Formats: sequence, structure tokens, C-alpha cells
Amino acid sequence: MTNRWSRAQQLAADRGIDALLITPGADLRYLTGYHALPLERLTCLVLPAEGDPTLVVPTLEKPAAVASGVDLAIASWDETDDPFALVASLVPQAGTLGVDDHMWASRVFALQATFPDAKTVLAGPIVQELRLRKTPDEVDALREAGAAIDRVHERMGEWLRPGRTEREVGADIARAILDEGHATVDFVIVGSGPNGASPHHDVSDRVIEVGDPVVVDIGGTTPAGYCSDSTRNYLAGGTPPDGYADAYAALEAAQAAQREHARPGVTAESVDAVGRDLLTEAGYGDRFIHRTGHGIGQETHEEPYIVAGNTTVLEPGMAFSIEPGVYLDGRFGARIEDIAVCTDNGLEVLNNTPRNLVVLS
Amino acid sequence: MTNRWSRAQQLAADRGIDALLITPGADLRYLTGYHALPLERLTCLVLPAEGDPTLVVPTLEKPAAVASGVDLAIASWDETDDPFALVASLVPQAGTLGVDDHMWASRVFALQATFPDAKTVLAGPIVQELRLRKTPDEVDALREAGAAIDRVHERMGEWLRPGRTEREVGADIARAILDEGHATVDFVIVGSGPNGASPHHDVSDRVIEVGDPVVVDIGGTTPAGYCSDSTRNYLAGGTPPDGYADAYAALEAAQAAQREHARPGVTAESVDAVGRDLLTEAGYGDRFIHRTGHGIGQETHEEPYIVAGNTTVLEPGMAFSIEPGVYLDGRFGARIEDIAVCTDNGLEVLNNTPRNLVVLS
Repeated sequence: MTNRWSRAQQLAADRGIDALLITPGADLRYLTGYHALPLERLTCLVLPAEGDPTLVVPTLEKPAAVASGVDLAIASWDETDDPFALVASLVPQAGTLGVDDHMWASRVFALQATFPDAKTVLAGPIVQELRLRKTPDEVDALREAGAAIDRVHERMGEWLRPGRTEREVGADIARAILDEGHATVDFVIVGSGPNGASPHHDVSDRVIEVGDPVVVDIGGTTPAGYCSDSTRNYLAGGTPPDGYADAYAALEAAQAAQREHARPGVTAESVDAVGRDLLTEAGYGDRFIHRTGHGIGQETHEEPYIVAGNTTVLEPGMAFSIEPGVYLDGRFGARIEDIAVCTDNGLEVLNNTPRNLVVLS
Repeated sequence: MTNRWSRAQQLAADRGIDALLITPGADLRYLTGYHALPLERLTCLVLPAEGDPTLVVPTLEKPAAVASGVDLAIASWDETDDPFALVASLVPQAGTLGVDDHMWASRVFALQATFPDAKTVLAGPIVQELRLRKTPDEVDALREAGAAIDRVHERMGEWLRPGRTEREVGADIARAILDEGHATVDFVIVGSGPNGASPHHDVSDRVIEVGDPVVVDIGGTTPAGYCSDSTRNYLAGGTPPDGYADAYAALEAAQAAQREHARPGVTAESVDAVGRDLLTEAGYGDRFIHRTGHGIGQETHEEPYIVAGNTTVLEPGMAFSIEPGVYLDGRFGARIEDIAVCTDNGLEVLNNTPRNLVVLS
């Protein structure tokens, strides 16, 4: 891990930032390997642009930090100490401080009070610069996560059937997400019938009926700390509602074209446009109410976002979702989502269960 | 819920704050009933001190926000809109803005750029003022959560035995947390033998041995959104290590004395002191390396903290953990934790499984 934080130090120095202050979350885990709990007691990596980093932890978390194998100095504070004073003692120069993008406002203000003359900026762009291109080891970890969630989708017929509620099916899926190789369940969306038209529906007490298309969007985090995320569409017997087949055919064509198009050298926004143009031609442009995708790694949503306006040029190692959707309010929705990673000259798709509407008997 | 946000408006006006800006988290759920995902697209309750509140959401989250039953105006923004400009249009006066304590730094800075002349302060103290005293309905919800986690502890003998790893036992406990009435698993600590000496250990591949004391600290969130948290200590056959019985007896006496002492009219810090003094007299003062407890409600850790220096006087409706611990590095640890709530003139303890070292056969 040393090279990760030392590369962040170099980038900070290049950008005139004197120290990075990183609180629990994906950036801390990426830089140090320490998966800290996001609790109310301050844990903070103090990473000066020059000199040695120190991990500030509450005394009761020190054994957990040591057990995580972090290879840096640890400074601990007791329940009635001021942790911000401890941080201040570890920052040799504080003209400009880079704070974690997800640092809580209460901590930002406490740091600003501790360093009244410092300029505070976001540390995120520096860490994102490192996290944006996955190493081969990280791609392996994403591949494992993808295979694990595929195994859950393959078992959907065990649970999803008419007469059961979305919540019941979702509880079974959650257990399978753990059984198939994840350490945590991050989200379980079971959107049946009209509920499929809400992209971020989770589960409800609605009973699944014959003829309901069901959007199942699920993900978890593996023990190695990498995330899965895949959406498939199921029909629990019967025939789908009027208009569904046309919408689904347009969606399948759009998602396939996006997978065909995405590769190193094209922009993130062009991947979005390829699918959006096809859906617009088919008459569903205003039903595709979200961007095409998000990067994925140690967070389910991270850079690069596959969205209009993002002119980032894709490079080998960038990993992201391709998940166009079509939503007809009050009637139904459909979304097809794969995680993909740019190879040296193409795209490796990490989810490989059937993308058609899967009819469960 | 209306009375919650209108009471927050009143407190904001009293303190000269022109508007509260609340992002996803426990404060948003408390004020509006909306359990929003903490994702990268901005969701924000705009609550002016005077006038009507508006919930700003990304368009794709709008159906979820409506489905949550929020009784306030919703303003949605599309993928390529500037959500901060939308927030600005909804704030009639912006001399002083109160931002969510857990708002991300990236959003704090974006708001400060959007409102360059505004003073930004924390909104947390206002919402905490409301959340600190639980209503009878909230106490009911905590009582249900306490009973649910008690049912998991009662089943510990099904899973915890020599020859299994902490991780295997933890996976079974996680399933039971869901089965017994929680919607999510928040944490599972299975600290066997020397791992018990790390208060925030989670699970490891260590195989539990005969004679290992095992600290099991578990919690989840119920469908109603309230948290459970209880710690018990188990022995998987054999006899505990030298010194354990003495330490455990001192711990039990300290925790019992704290339950006896805590009631309306005493300070939070005095509850800590009662237990700490007893453990110090017994020779374990420097082994009790954390505060006695934390408030609990829609967050596992919230006000009031039961810690030296907190002179808050306990009042009816305040709910918190009482969880002293003793930690002997490299040897073993022990902690006894109950959630309790102040009644009109005493204390109701919400966890009621045996507090002694439970010997599993």
C-alpha cells in the first residue's frame, strides 16, 4: 500500500497542498488498507506532502487499526482528549489543507477552527486520480465480485414467484448475496410491476402478480472490499403488459450498442449518447431519466460517471456500469446493468447472465 | 412528522439561522420520514426558518421520495442540472445557513461557493435538541429493537462453539439479526479469546477454542428505523483464563451500579463515574479504555454520550447504552451492554438476557 499514499503525497505537493486529511471511507481504505468504522470519534489519516504520515485513531480503535496491518505510525487519543489538537501537532505546514470529500461538516468546521489561517480544499480529486484506473489486482477483485452477483441472479427462480411480496423475495436475495461470496449486502431493489418505474425503489409489501415484469438490481461488497452491481429483469409467469416488449427491445439494443462502443479512447459522455440516441429514436428518450452509469471499485458509485458533460476519455483500467433504463410511470420499468472494465484496447464485461427478459416458470 | 420540522424551524428562528440544509442521514429521516440513500447526487431538505420547506431530490429518486410519504413540496433536478442553484432558489434569506452535521465536505464547499456571503454553522445542535428526548412511540420502537436483539442473543448456543471461526459464527448471527426482526445488520463483533481485548474488533478467521471467553456485540436497525445494540459474554466450554473471573465480577458490579444510578436528574458523566470508580477500586481503572455509553435512536451512536465532561442532566425519554468494559491486551476482554431509557422517575432497561458469563454446552 505504501506506493498509494506516497503517490498521493506527490500529487499533493504538485498541487500546492501541504497535507491531506482523510477520514473513514473508501479513500482511507484505498490509501492505507484500513477499513475504519464511520463513527463519531475522529479517525483521520494525516498525510503531509513531505514527511511521514500518521493515522490518528481513538484509543479503543487502536487494536483494530493495528490488526488491519496498516504500515504507518498510529497516534491515539483518549475519550476526553481533543483529537483536532492531535491532528494539528502532526501537520508541519498548514497553508493549504486537502480534506476528504466525504468528511463531515462538523469536522470540516472543527479543522477550520483549529487552523484559522489555512485554506481548505478537497482532497478527493487527488485520491480519485489514483483510484480511477484499476490495477490488475483490482480488476481481479471486481471480476470476483461480478461473478458472485451473477451467481445470485442465476438463482432468482428459487425465490421470485407470484404471490410473494417484494420484501420476502428481497430478504432471500440478501441472504444469497452473502452466501455467494460478499461480506455485506449493499442494496436490494425488487421493483415489480409499476414499482419498476422507480429507479431507486428498494422493496415493498407489494405482492408480485402473474404478468409483472420485475426489475432486480442488487449488489454487495466482497471481503476484499470491492463492489458488485448488476440489474436483470424477470417475468414471474404470464405475459408482460402492453408496450413492454417494444420498450424492452429498444433497451436491449441500446445497452448492447453501449457495450460495443465503450473502449479506451472514447469519452464517458459518448457512451451515454450512443444509448440515449437509440432510445430517443425508438421514442423512449424522455423515459430514460438517468445517466448511463457510474464508476465502481471500493465504492459502488465513484468516478468515472458515464453522463452527458463528462468529457473524460476512457483508459485501460477504468471500471463502470452500463445501465440504461426505461421507466413508464404507473406501468412498468426496465433496466439492464453490467459492470465493465476497459482493457488495453477493448472492454471486458464482468456480468454475464442473460440480458433478455428472463421468464421464470 | 409536520411538528418535527416546524419545531426545527422555530429553533432555527430563535438562534438566528435563516435556513437549515439537511442531507441524507438520520436527521433527514427524523425530520421528514424520508430514508434517502446517501449517494453522490444531492438530496437536501431546504427548511427556511420562515416559510415552506422543500425537499430537493434527483429526478430518479423522486418516485422513492413520493413513496416514502413525505408531506412537503418536492423539487427535482435532472442529471445535468446544478442542484446547488436549485437549493439557492429555495432559500429566501441566506445570512446564516445551518448545514447538516454529516454533510460531506464537497457539498459544504459547493454551498459556500453558492452563497459566498452567508455564514455557515452546524444544524446538528437544533435537530439533536429534538431527537434527544424520545417520544412514547420512539421508546416503543426502541423496545421492539431491544427485544429483537435479545432474541438473537438467546439463540447464541446454536452457532457459537469451539472449532468454528469467528467469521462463521458472525455470518450466522447476521442472518439471525434479520430473521428476528431487523431490516439491516449494522455490526457483528465476535471477539474470542485475545480478540476480545479489542473493543471494536469485528470478526476474524480465528478458530474459537475451548476456554475462550467470547465478547458478542451486535446490532441492527428495525423496519421502523430504530437501532438495537447489546453485548453479552459467552464461554464455549472449558474454564476461562486466569484472572477472568475476578475481572468479570468487577465488571458486572460496575454495570449493575450504573443501571441503579442512571435516572432523570443525574448527569451523563456521573453515570460514567459510578462505574469507573468501582472498576478503579477493583484495580481495572486503566483497563476500561472507553466511555460508558452513547445515546441511541435512529442512529446507533447519537446524543447523549455517557462520558466524563458531559454535564447534560438526564431527562425522561433519553435513551442510551450502559456498556463498561475491561480489556487485558493479548489475553481477553469483557463488556456488558444494555440499552436503557429514562422513564419519568427511573430507568427502563431494554435488554434483558442474562448478564453473567453465559456458558454454552
